[in-house]
Amino acid sequence: MQPVMTSEELRAFLHDAFPQVMGSEFGFTVDEIGEGYTVMKLLAAERHLRPGGTVSGPTLFTLADVSAYVAILAHIGPVALAVTTNMSINFLIKPPPGTLAAKASILKLGKRLAVVEVAISGESDGVTVCHAVATYSIPPR
Amino acid sequence: MQPVMTSEELRAFLHDAFPQVMGSEFGFTVDEIGEGYTVMKLLAAERHLRPGGTVSGPTLFTLADVSAYVAILAHIGPVALAVTTNMSINFLIKPPPGTLAAKASILKLGKRLAVVEVAISGESDGVTVCHAVATYSIPPR
Amino acid sequence: MQPVMTSEELRAFLHDAFPQVMGSEFGFTVDEIGEGYTVMKLLAAERHLRPGGTVSGPTLFTLADVSAYVAILAHIGPVALAVTTNMSINFLIKPPPGTLAAKASILKLGKRLAVVEVAISGESDGVTVCHAVATYSIPPR
Amino acid sequence: MQPVMTSEELRAFLHDAFPQVMGSEFGFTVDEIGEGYTVMKLLAAERHLRPGGTVSGPTLFTLADVSAYVAILAHIGPVALAVTTNMSINFLIKPPPGTLAAKASILKLGKRLAVVEVAISGESDGVTVCHAVATYSIPPR
Repeated sequence: MQPVMTSEELRAFLHDAFPQVMGSEFGFTVDEIGEGYTVMKLLAAERHLRPGGTVSGPTLFTLADVSAYVAILAHIGPVALAVTTNMSINFLIKPPPGTLAAKASILKLGKRLAVVEVAISGESDGVTVCHAVATYSIPPR
Repeated sequence: MQPVMTSEELRAFLHDAFPQVMGSEFGFTVDEIGEGYTVMKLLAAERHLRPGGTVSGPTLFTLADVSAYVAILAHIGPVALAVTTNMSINFLIKPPPGTLAAKASILKLGKRLAVVEVAISGESDGVTVCHAVATYSIPPR
Repeated sequence: MQPVMTSEELRAFLHDAFPQVMGSEFGFTVDEIGEGYTVMKLLAAERHLRPGGTVSGPTLFTLADVSAYVAILAHIGPVALAVTTNMSINFLIKPPPGTLAAKASILKLGKRLAVVEVAISGESDGVTVCHAVATYSIPPR
Repeated sequence: MQPVMTSEELRAFLHDAFPQVMGSEFGFTVDEIGEGYTVMKLLAAERHLRPGGTVSGPTLFTLADVSAYVAILAHIGPVALAVTTNMSINFLIKPPPGTLAAKASILKLGKRLAVVEVAISGESDGVTVCHAVATYSIPPR
């Protein structure tokens, strides 16, 4: 499964399409695009944090959702507008403070549905803190 | 299954414990507490909206998570600190602009685990736009 | 949401299409068809039981899957061949011995995807023992 | 994460505890035990098959459930009786006829909850046909 967009193209597209998420202020970045997967990072800012410095559940959900979406986009191109239909997300342990990495791996890329697995880990120790599987509906082209 | 907190007690507790979510600016309110369920509402503010006036996925996730948490709290009291371990969420249709209502119904309230179903609908037409089932771990008392 | 098949039509179709599940030996029956929902029952036979007389997880999964499929079929007719794409299932408490009832309620019936919620309860006490939400892909007609 | 049981110990335990699943007739085998994972295989017999030679959904569910259970058992020993509380399962493509391999990887092994990811693939081509994430409640020891 070959990506069809470069990191640069992806960043430019996301910056235009989702200014509220991808702006420098929010802290999501696309770090790697590979065959069937992408890696994004979240430099957790103050407003993502719960007391104790841990990243909140909604922020982890957002990271998982954006990462899965980006992985699909990277492999089908910017024309399609995929929509999240389902996400099952497991919160395994409290994330450590600091940068989180989200690896999104495509399990299925069909004509109508895509299924993507996302593993989020702390950059410092590599331990998986959150795991999600999401389904996206791909509109007819 | 009888609630053990009044709406007033619940609001006061949430306001202290989660100022970032329950502040007037965010727009979550507890509207009803019944046997085995609660109803919360979200008066979607500008920053919850996507282009076209639709409420974003992360905002729906947050509403589902807070609603399920509140339903548990209302039935076990403010002492316990339940933690979300899993949520499976289905996005059914794009929510209409305006107020959303989230009914959280407790499916199981065990000593160690609670399972809550949440149906989110548009207040104007009552159509379910998002459905979630969440599991919470309840710490030993 | 109006059903388009009668109980008799549904039974005849299922008997032909799924002899291995709907044969008298297995014990699944269609008990009720209503607006947006169906009720099936399982008269648990010896081979569905675990030690202690409890119904096994795979049998509950099968009951949930067949019930959701039947609810869709009842509302779109026997021509379409819906395929399960996702099921999230929660096992709440051990089912009591005896007959189980599965109420399948359609949350969404779109052109391409249907989402159905299934609550399985013991007929004797009505307590929900298992809850599932399933997504089905509906092929183009 | 080190396994604490050998393949032989695991097989003997399962054969005694689950004769209905692990008997030679059903066709589940434990093929590999590694650090944090196990691999089981299913030699699909006639009664697991749907028309066209494809393995049924309930059989895939059973394979996923047994594999996750076995992975936990291999790492905590045969004393504990873990119970499935949730499974989210995605059916990606129709499985090919023939042997299926299920790799169960432990995402979390806590004192009270374990979370396991299972990827099921056709032995002939290695393509993932089904993916599941399951949560198990571990009783107090």
